[in-house]
This record gives sequence, C-alpha cells and structure tokens, in this order.
Amino acid sequence: MSAVKSQKEKLGRITIKAIKEVATNIDKRIARMRKPEITFPVRSLGNVRYDPRKGYFELGKDRSARTLSVNTAKSFAQTLKMMALSKELVETNDFATKRDAYYQSKNWGDARFDDQSESDTVMDDIEAMFSVHGVSREQLCYVPDEHGGAVAGDLIVYDTDIQTGKTEKIDCTKFGSGAYSIPSLVEQLTFETNAKFVLCIETGGMFQRLQSHKFWRKSKCILVSLAGVPTRATRRFVRRLSDQCKLPVYAFVDCDPYGMSNIYRTLKVGSGNAAHLSQFFCVPKTRFLGVTPQDIIDYDLPTHPLLDVDVKRAKDALKNDPFFKTHKPWQKAIEQLLKMGVRAEQQALAKWGLNYVIEEYLPQKLAQRDRFLP
Amino acid sequence: MSAVKSQKEKLGRITIKAIKEVATNIDKRIARMRKPEITFPVRSLGNVRYDPRKGYFELGKDRSARTLSVNTAKSFAQTLKMMALSKELVETNDFATKRDAYYQSKNWGDARFDDQSESDTVMDDIEAMFSVHGVSREQLCYVPDEHGGAVAGDLIVYDTDIQTGKTEKIDCTKFGSGAYSIPSLVEQLTFETNAKFVLCIETGGMFQRLQSHKFWRKSKCILVSLAGVPTRATRRFVRRLSDQCKLPVYAFVDCDPYGMSNIYRTLKVGSGNAAHLSQFFCVPKTRFLGVTPQDIIDYDLPTHPLLDVDVKRAKDALKNDPFFKTHKPWQKAIEQLLKMGVRAEQQALAKWGLNYVIEEYLPQKLAQRDRFLP
Repeated sequence: MSAVKSQKEKLGRITIKAIKEVATNIDKRIARMRKPEITFPVRSLGNVRYDPRKGYFELGKDRSARTLSVNTAKSFAQTLKMMALSKELVETNDFATKRDAYYQSKNWGDARFDDQSESDTVMDDIEAMFSVHGVSREQLCYVPDEHGGAVAGDLIVYDTDIQTGKTEKIDCTKFGSGAYSIPSLVEQLTFETNAKFVLCIETGGMFQRLQSHKFWRKSKCILVSLAGVPTRATRRFVRRLSDQCKLPVYAFVDCDPYGMSNIYRTLKVGSGNAAHLSQFFCVPKTRFLGVTPQDIIDYDLPTHPLLDVDVKRAKDALKNDPFFKTHKPWQKAIEQLLKMGVRAEQQALAKWGLNYVIEEYLPQKLAQRDRFLP
Repeated sequence: MSAVKSQKEKLGRITIKAIKEVATNIDKRIARMRKPEITFPVRSLGNVRYDPRKGYFELGKDRSARTLSVNTAKSFAQTLKMMALSKELVETNDFATKRDAYYQSKNWGDARFDDQSESDTVMDDIEAMFSVHGVSREQLCYVPDEHGGAVAGDLIVYDTDIQTGKTEKIDCTKFGSGAYSIPSLVEQLTFETNAKFVLCIETGGMFQRLQSHKFWRKSKCILVSLAGVPTRATRRFVRRLSDQCKLPVYAFVDCDPYGMSNIYRTLKVGSGNAAHLSQFFCVPKTRFLGVTPQDIIDYDLPTHPLLDVDVKRAKDALKNDPFFKTHKPWQKAIEQLLKMGVRAEQQALAKWGLNYVIEEYLPQKLAQRDRFLP
C-alpha cells in the first residue's frame, strides 16, 4: 500500500531532475558568456503527427528557442521563477493552481505578473517545454482549478493523507447513490479492481441512473461521469486507470458531432492545438459504444434536427481531422448522421422505459463489442 | 442505521398523499359535473415575503387556477401524466431527470411533449403546485441533471444501496485528496458528525487546498465545494446537514457582487423568482466569513477593478434586494466595495504564501465569528 507514496516520490525525482536539467543548461551558457536561451516545442497543427498504432496526436520535432534579450527579460525571469516555484512545490509536497501562481508572483518584485493572462501564457510555455522531457504540468504540481468527474463501481483507489502520510483506501462500491469525486492531482493514485472495462458517460443524469441501479455490479465495470468535455483531472484519471489496470474504456455519449468529436475524439486521441498534452491525457484504448447513428434507427429513438453548428462540425471532422480521416467506419457513421439530418441524446432511450438503457440497450451493445466504432 | 430507509419511506408516503389529494380534488369536480381545475401559486416578486426571523424568501398567498378548456386540454393532461409518473417513481424507488420525463412522454399518445421546453414548463408548474403542500420536486423523484458539489471532512453520510437495500456508511474523512460527490437526490441521507460548522467554498482550487491540507481536522468542520453558484443538490445537501446536525454554515467566496449576491444570497435566502424553492433549498443559518471589502484592506490583497456588470449588480442589490435592504452591515459592505472600485478573488490570499489562508486568514476570521456579515 506504500505504493502510493513511492509513486509520488519517484515522480518527484523525475520532475526535479528535469527542472535542474533545464536550469543547468541556462547556467552553463551564462558561464560560457553566451546569451541564455530556452527551447520550446512549436505548438501548431503543422507540428502534429498521428500514428493510429500509437493511438494519439503527437508533437513533432519542430522547436523554437527564446533567447534572453531586452524584450524577453521579464518573461524569461518569470519562466525561471515559475520553475523554481514548481521545484519548491514538489519538495514541500504541495501544489498550486494557475491563480495561486499568479498571486504568488505579487512578491516577485519586478518579475511579478501584471495580469493573469501573462502568467497563463508562461504556464503554457512551461507545460510545453517540460512535455518534451515527459513531465506534465500536474507533475510540476500546477493543478487545474476545476474538479474532476465522479466515479463509482468496482474500484479501490489508494491515496495518501498528505498531513499524516497514511494511505487511505477508497472503496468506490460503497457510496450509496453518491460517488468519488476525482481530485485535481491524480498522479499519486494507485488502483485495485476486478472490473473488465471503464464506462465513460457524458451526462450526470445517465451516470446517476447507472450508479443508483448499480449497473457496474452485474456488468463488472467502473463508471466515470464526464459531465460534458472531460476536465484534465478526469482524462488523466481514466488514462492512468486504463494503463495501470489494462482496462478498455468505452464511451457512452450523445449521438451528435459534439459527442463524437469534442468529447470522444478529445478523450481518445487529444486535440490538434494541444498535442503536447496527448502523451499524458489521451486514452488510446477508448472505443465508442454509442449512441451511434445506426442506434437511432435500430432503437427507433426520438431525435432533434441537426443544427447548423452540428453540420459544420461534422463536415470539418470529415475534411480536416486526422483521426476521422484515418478511420473508415467513422467516416461512414458521420456521413450517415449528416444524411439523416438528426441527432439523439443518450437519454432518448428513456422512451422505452427509464431503465431500458440498463436492461436492454447496454447489455445488447456490450455483447457485440467488436462492433464498437474505433 | 435503518434511519435512511425509514426516512425514505416516510417521505414517499407524504409525497403520494399529496399527489392523491390533488388528483382526488380533480376527480371530485368531474363527478359533480364541474370543470376540473388545478391551483398554482403565483410566481412573481410581488408574491414574495421576506421575514428576517424566518430567514428566507417565502411565497405569498396569491394563487391562480387553471381550468380545463379546449386550450388547456393538452397541458392539463400532461400535468396529470407527470403526476402519475411521479407516483410510479416513488412506488418503484426510482427517479427521472427532466430529460427522462420528456422522452418518457413519447409513449403518452396525444399527451406527448413535442418539445423539451414544454415539458420543462409543466415540470416547473408541478414543482410550484406541490411546494404549497410542502413537497419538493426532488421528493416527487424528479432529479436535476447536474451533479452535486464535493464534500470532505468530519462527516459520515448514510445512504442505501437501492439494489440490495443495504445501508452504506460513507466516511468523508477517508478520501485522500479526493472527495465525496453529492448525488442528485439527497432526501434519504442521514448524517453523523462532530464538526462545529460547515465551510462552503466558492472555487474548486481553494477547496482542493483546504482538503489536501486537511483544514477540517484542526478546525473541526466539513468542507463543501460550491463550484460557483451551487446546484440544487448541493444547496439541499447543505440545508439538510445544517438542519439535522444543527450546524452553522460559513460561506467563503470571492469579494465581488457575484460572490455576495448570486452565490451567498442565493444559498442563504433564495432568489426572488423562485421563492417556492426557498423552503427546501435555503440555508438560513449561513453567514458570510469572507472575503469582505474590509479584508482587502486588512490583508492588503491584490485586486482587479470592478467591471460595469459588477457595479450594476451591486447597485441593484442595494436598491431592490429585500435581503440586502434588511441588513445594514451588508449595505455598508457593498457601499464600501463600490467606493473602493475593486474586487478580490479568494485565491488572492496566496500573495502571502500558498497556505497563508490555512495558517493565518481562516483561523483569524474564525476567532471572531460574531463579526461575520449576516
């Protein structure tokens, strides 16, 4: 059970090593009387690769260097101060949000941030820079301000009480109708489970139904509420769970371009303008359970007409998205949806009874997992 | 521990009694060959009372009647079908979201809803109608689609597994850095605690800091993350906790008109256009810990200028809001804020160190609870 603690310590060592490496390089250049510089990966769609075997968008090899000059002096100093703060956070077992970091800077004299957008930019730079070292923003102990999603089912989570150092055992089968709320920082968590898969659910209402009726018990799974586009903490939690326990992940979302692209595609392979995050946040083992356009026909679901924004999003996916362009079954599904001209919510299954989803739909779909969209 | 089950059964009996009462009245009128009618409370600011001793906005005595006619036949039928569905939900120990109810109606023949806005309106009518009987929408087993907030600290929650009927004991001291996620429906929960107060926190980042550092342990409290304006489930959870365990509630939010009015005022006394909810959702024992305008001066906090929308909201509160108009200390505080022309976020305390809030600010404030704003 001290696995949690040793996991945290190991990550801390890796993070501090990366920070020292960057800092030492700057120091060396100064010692050789050369202008110090920091190297960042180029963040643009042109510097992104997608290899379906790897399963997620990767950052390419393009780099840009920021050399110390009169114009860059302040942001250069801020970048180093942010790195120093990160080192301190790792060493003191603490963390900071973007806002915390902004307000902390008020005591950095001339290097203080005048505006939060300034500190956000430096934070993004640091994140991209350290992603090249395989170190995430969360490992730098900069945590998101949003909560993670809710979790219930056949899962035990181990976490530490940072005050007492004691390991806490969190049994996600024992929450009544409630759930486990994922913390901002999940790197230290370890897991124990007999589940066969993770079911990620778009809406809070559907999650509540499956949790209250203990769908996970019969189907041996873990339920995760995405509540729309999942937060960083939720994505990272699902990724670590999937990796550590070797579990496939199934997405159960609305049948519309938003559910397919913004939610599912982002969860599985990431997004174009943030490819430096993919290595930490993407869950390549994810497959699309439903609701599919074919389900609308097979289950005679009530629908709404596609909005203009839906049509635009779907056409964009077919034309520009390396993920959908790689997978034929997805192109067919999206074309079918466009042809039908309608969308359906996952709760539309309630037409056939509130618990039809539990008694019929999900068991039928899960019996034919090879038919899930890739 | 079977308190949970008997609480649920008691509520179910009250709900069914109220549904039957309304239905019987309609039936009687029909039997006497008179046009059936349903009575609703008038929902407008003119039909709202505020008695500071009671502590929340109350619905006045104005009622309007809807009589069955050619024009109202469909919505009349829909109202009755929704009541019948509610009765079924109570009897089968189930629940439905607004969306579930909408899709269920697709099998109601001519009484089906064509659009979700239609079913939402009928739901709101039913909610107002039954509030007069002291029965909330949640007791009718219509649950919100959003999640509740996160909870951590000195609290044990008892809930039932509706599949096995077993009572689950949820110990909120044992979540590591995570938390307990409040379910949509909290009516059945019972509590056990030695805490002295409930601390409601506006931002997820601040909640995470207080939870990770176990602030609740030393200060003997329960932490609740509001994540902005609290959801129905969160408000009801805090209300039931405060009532059942006789605990005061302290709000810790940003120092701006949004934190004071939209978050604090709504949590404590409700809002004008939804006074029929107050009896279930308001937490009259809430007091305002901070951040106050005076704190900005006393703690020399970094600020942002008030936006036009802030100024408008503040002036509105002074001029039109019965709550702020009743409490002199609030008028002074808002006038002070307007004069200073700035606002401050709760995380601004990080200027003095990330854990200054835990080591200095909160202990100092809590030592002078009589100074909290009403």
